[in-house]
Amino acid sequence: MPGAPPNPPMWGILPMTRDAETDSAVAKPVPPSGVLGILGGGQLGRMMALAAARLGLKTHIYCPDPESPAFDVTPRKTVAAYDDRTALAKFAACVDAVTFEFENVPAETAEFLAARTMLRPNALALAVAQDRLREKRFFAERGIATAPFAPVGDADELAAALAKIGAPAILKTRRLGYDGKGQSRIERADDGARAFEALGCQPCILEGLVDFTKEVSLVLARGRNGQTAHYDLAWNRHENHILRQSTVPAAVPPECAQRARDIGEVLLADLDYVGVLAIEFFVVETPAGTDLLVNEIAPRVHNSGHWTEAACPTSQFEQHVRAVCGWPLGECRRTVDAEMTNLLGAEAEAWPALAERGDSVLHLYGKAETRDGRKMGHITRILRNGLDTGNRN
Amino acid sequence: MPGAPPNPPMWGILPMTRDAETDSAVAKPVPPSGVLGILGGGQLGRMMALAAARLGLKTHIYCPDPESPAFDVTPRKTVAAYDDRTALAKFAACVDAVTFEFENVPAETAEFLAARTMLRPNALALAVAQDRLREKRFFAERGIATAPFAPVGDADELAAALAKIGAPAILKTRRLGYDGKGQSRIERADDGARAFEALGCQPCILEGLVDFTKEVSLVLARGRNGQTAHYDLAWNRHENHILRQSTVPAAVPPECAQRARDIGEVLLADLDYVGVLAIEFFVVETPAGTDLLVNEIAPRVHNSGHWTEAACPTSQFEQHVRAVCGWPLGECRRTVDAEMTNLLGAEAEAWPALAERGDSVLHLYGKAETRDGRKMGHITRILRNGLDTGNRN
Repeated sequence: MPGAPPNPPMWGILPMTRDAETDSAVAKPVPPSGVLGILGGGQLGRMMALAAARLGLKTHIYCPDPESPAFDVTPRKTVAAYDDRTALAKFAACVDAVTFEFENVPAETAEFLAARTMLRPNALALAVAQDRLREKRFFAERGIATAPFAPVGDADELAAALAKIGAPAILKTRRLGYDGKGQSRIERADDGARAFEALGCQPCILEGLVDFTKEVSLVLARGRNGQTAHYDLAWNRHENHILRQSTVPAAVPPECAQRARDIGEVLLADLDYVGVLAIEFFVVETPAGTDLLVNEIAPRVHNSGHWTEAACPTSQFEQHVRAVCGWPLGECRRTVDAEMTNLLGAEAEAWPALAERGDSVLHLYGKAETRDGRKMGHITRILRNGLDTGNRN
Repeated sequence: MPGAPPNPPMWGILPMTRDAETDSAVAKPVPPSGVLGILGGGQLGRMMALAAARLGLKTHIYCPDPESPAFDVTPRKTVAAYDDRTALAKFAACVDAVTFEFENVPAETAEFLAARTMLRPNALALAVAQDRLREKRFFAERGIATAPFAPVGDADELAAALAKIGAPAILKTRRLGYDGKGQSRIERADDGARAFEALGCQPCILEGLVDFTKEVSLVLARGRNGQTAHYDLAWNRHENHILRQSTVPAAVPPECAQRARDIGEVLLADLDYVGVLAIEFFVVETPAGTDLLVNEIAPRVHNSGHWTEAACPTSQFEQHVRAVCGWPLGECRRTVDAEMTNLLGAEAEAWPALAERGDSVLHLYGKAETRDGRKMGHITRILRNGLDTGNRN
């Protein structure tokens, strides 16, 4: 919010549920008919709003895009920029808690809201997840293995980083960028300068390539009083840097799954985290056995957890709502095996055939405009049923 | 709509998807981003709207009550009386199909809408379900067994009915009345006149008492091209004439469950039905074995089918939306056994403890006002899991 004075007392109203203790120890939950504010009106905000509705909660979606799909399922909305302090102050004054669907909430926005209402997950989680270098260092400080990495702020650092990590390697901007945007592969060390320039000489991180056998992710949650819950690991396949499919269970050794959960618990505790957190891992084979490297975290519900709505008593969306509203966490057990496939762009136009699949749960996001590669929906195939009853003719 | 001329050409717009064939053979389904109109904004309308949203459909809720809980989850709403032709015409003009959450949609309203858009289920199903006498005769004409019954239009018919059926018996108004309202038990034949007067001498039906061992219900659906699907029978327990609990599976002999489905198929076909239909049965023991008597039908999603959202790939709400929008029907298999309990009045205030239950799926309706006996939510306990994975700490 450039140019604006820091934290003006726009409304002067502090919600009743605000407390001065740590974020995870909150006395008073948001009750049914209370209002959960959500920054972002895409499919994740929409699915959180649907989950909140099922718990009797109201949602207030804040998004600059007037065509946001989440607006169709919420009683209250604000169409405004994320740096519009007047709109933010009004929003904060009429919600009981605020969460978000994307990790790139500007730090100033997060601070502004956190001063006025409960922001969950907290600003620390956002700050760590927004900056690839800070994120990697956060892991390293805790002995959590990652791909080799080095900071790239200028040409000298670039040279040092390439000397340390070698090529091929991936140069990524520290901030922003998702689904493969904001990154460039360096095949040979003398391609480095060109790649750095292609990224606008922004602050970057150079990451070594990892020879992984598969990618898996862990979706877990932390609620009030430090209660935690985790879903089963999902095995993820990407195409063109976009998630294509997630399958549960992921075939990884039990000790590997346990290691993922241990890492998750450390991150949840050290971030004083409240809400659903997703952690992406590379599975690597080493002489000592199967091991995990953390790729990145997302302080929000995650595409690789969409299968939970079809396979668990509590979906990741409901779990996140429960956590950020101070409710007890819900049950994460899978009742079936499942495989979630994203429907990208025109693929969703095959909805009549997709809706016909008797083994699948279809979810479409109600987006008006189809664009290449745009996430339009997903479909979760149920791979194993406990029972076989009821029928269609 | 007393006093209004029949079917005035208010807007003159006939939706593109309207066709002249039978209701169940519709060429063009309502596509994602199409609009489903719903009459009634209570919890059933709300849950249908949530299910429609998951399929990418928009909903338009029409309800006279400005505090309708369904308004919180729909992008479009109309607050108007069910006999407001101006509002109805406008509503019909901006939806692709219309359904309803309650069977007491006035016949004039149904006809008015059916002339302008696709009304599903059709006016015949409404007419049969609205009139207890017509309903019983509809069953009898098809050889479907019910409790003994006789029409009561006046004192003479009352005497004849009591002579035929005997006492004790139940006198019910032919129209309206639910959850035990609009009925009176006659213990002895000479109490008949008093009971008839207590019901305002409205047209009634006298029904003999049935010595049933349990009540069960079948929720099934019929879609386009006559496709049908059924859920497993639920065993229902009532308290004070209000549904308290539904359990699946219901312990009835397989031939009995088959008989229920056969009856269901006859009713779906003979009503040229499109949508979810619920049929309540009495289970009776006869010298020849276990038998079923039909109690009544509801041409809509039904409280005794709420368990489906926690136990089946396709909930009854999604199934209804699929059927009335001309989509293929979804999968009805149970993946788990389940027990649904209604949360009435102040019971929902125990939500913190209810939300804590790891074996249950909680659903609250977001109603602002708690009243004695009012349906505020429901909770579905999962009695058997296919798998045992994930965990809460």
